Amino acid sequence: MADQLDATIQSPRDVRMEIRNDRVQGSTSGLAPGYLQANLVVVPESAAFDFLLFCHRNPKPCPILEVLDAGSPEPRVTAPGADLRTDVGRYRVFEHGQQVDEPTDIRRWWRSDLVAFLLGCSFSFEDAMRRAGLPLRHVEERRTVPMFRTSIECARAGQFHGPLVVSMRPLTPMDAIRAAEITARYPLAHGAPVHAGDPGAIGIADVNRPDYGEAVTMRPGEIPVFWACAVTPQAAIANARPPFAITHAPGRMFVTDVRAEHEA
Amino acid sequence: MADQLDATIQSPRDVRMEIRNDRVQGSTSGLAPGYLQANLVVVPESAAFDFLLFCHRNPKPCPILEVLDAGSPEPRVTAPGADLRTDVGRYRVFEHGQQVDEPTDIRRWWRSDLVAFLLGCSFSFEDAMRRAGLPLRHVEERRTVPMFRTSIECARAGQFHGPLVVSMRPLTPMDAIRAAEITARYPLAHGAPVHAGDPGAIGIADVNRPDYGEAVTMRPGEIPVFWACAVTPQAAIANARPPFAITHAPGRMFVTDVRAEHEA
Repeated sequence: MADQLDATIQSPRDVRMEIRNDRVQGSTSGLAPGYLQANLVVVPESAAFDFLLFCHRNPKPCPILEVLDAGSPEPRVTAPGADLRTDVGRYRVFEHGQQVDEPTDIRRWWRSDLVAFLLGCSFSFEDAMRRAGLPLRHVEERRTVPMFRTSIECARAGQFHGPLVVSMRPLTPMDAIRAAEITARYPLAHGAPVHAGDPGAIGIADVNRPDYGEAVTMRPGEIPVFWACAVTPQAAIANARPPFAITHAPGRMFVTDVRAEHEA
Repeated sequence: MADQLDATIQSPRDVRMEIRNDRVQGSTSGLAPGYLQANLVVVPESAAFDFLLFCHRNPKPCPILEVLDAGSPEPRVTAPGADLRTDVGRYRVFEHGQQVDEPTDIRRWWRSDLVAFLLGCSFSFEDAMRRAGLPLRHVEERRTVPMFRTSIECARAGQFHGPLVVSMRPLTPMDAIRAAEITARYPLAHGAPVHAGDPGAIGIADVNRPDYGEAVTMRPGEIPVFWACAVTPQAAIANARPPFAITHAPGRMFVTDVRAEHEA
C-alpha cells in the first residue's frame, strides 16, 4: 500500500483509481508530481454563465482548466475516461450555501443539469518552486498554507462576488523575485504573486492570524509574498448561495493528465 | 475631415466619436494604431453560457477581450464610457440565423437580456507585422484578406459548433517564422499561426479560391501561412441559429482603449 502510493511512480490515472476505490482520501499534495491538479466546482446550469464569467473576469484566483458540458462527469480534455463523481477523495455538497453532505462519491447527488468546472491549483507552482530550491515554509512546518481575505474585491459577475483570497509564503526579497519569475510560467496555477510586502496594503491586519489555514514562521529578512488562491471562488459561492453546489473538500484535488510544463 | 481621420493622431475615443456620429462607417483597419480592435457578438442570455464556453474552448479563433453584464452596452474594462449600441460603424442583426437588418445604430434592437462579447481581431497583429517589415499581401493589393473554412472542427459547446475558419497571408518560410514569433505575442489577436504550408492538410482545396475575402498573389518561394480568424464564431452562430444575435459588419470593428502591447 505504501509502495503503491509512492508519488514518484504513480501516474495521474493510478492516483485517480486509488481515490475512486477509496484507498486515498487525504491531501493530494505531492501525488502524481508534474501533473496539474484541479479545484472542483459544480453548479447548476442556471448559475453556470455567471460562474464562468466570474472565472473569466478573475483569472488569477480562478484559472479555468476545463468546463464540462452540462450533465457530463467526464473531463474529456484534461482527463479522458475519468469520472468527476468518484475520482475526488472527498466532496462538499451545498444547498443554498449550507453544507448538507461531505461524501467520498457524488453519484447519488449527480443531475443532468450540473456543470463541472476544473480550476487550477497552487500545488503545481509549489512543485516548481521546490525544484528551484525555494523554501516552502508551510511544507517545512507541516502546516496548511496560511490564507487571507483581502480588501481587493473581485470583479463581480451576476450573483458571484466577494474578496480576493490569497495564500502567503514568506521569502527573502531576492527569493520573492525568483519565485515571481517561476510562478509566472504557470498561469493555470494562479501565476505570479498578486502582492509582496506590506500586508496592510491589501487589507490584511496581521500575517500571523490567517483567515484559513495555519500561521507559519516569518524569519528575519523575509517578506510575506501573496498569491491568488482558489478559496476565492468558494467564497464567491458562499456569498451567492446558489440553490445547489458541489466542491472538493480542502486539499483533496482532482488530478489531471495535463503536464504542468505543457499548460501553455 | 480628412485631417481629423488621420490615423496617427486619433485616440480610440476620438475614433469612436467619429463612428458614433456616423462620420466613419467603413473599415476600421489602421485607425487608432496600437490599440486593440474587437469583433462584436451579441446573444441573448439564454445562449450566453454556450457561447462563452465556445470561446473558452476555442481561444485562438475567439480570444475574449471582454464579456459585458446582461443588458449593459458599456465595456467598462476595455473602453469605459463607450456605448456598443452606437460606437460600431455598421451592425448586422439576425433572427434565427437570418439577417434582418444592417443598421449603423442598434439602440432600437437593444434588450435587457442581451450579452455582448468583444473578441480579439487580427488588425493588431497585422500592425505588429507591418512594423517588423513583414509583407501583408492583401494590404499591398488592396484586397480583403482571403479566408477559408478548414476541415478542423472547433470544440463544440452546446448549440455552437462549426469549422475553424482561417485567414491566409503568403510569406517566405523565414518570414513565416518571424511572423510566428511576433504574432505569438498577441494571444488576444489570434496569436501564432495554426498552420503553414500544405493547404490540403487542413482541408483547403485551392488557396486561390477563398471562401470569404479575396484571393491574393502567391509569389515564388512563398508558402501560405494560416491564422485562426474571427469569422469562426460567426460561422458557429450561423450553425446554431439562436433566436436573436447581433454582430459588427465585416471590417467595422469596435476600437478599444487597450494598448495592444499591454494585452498580456
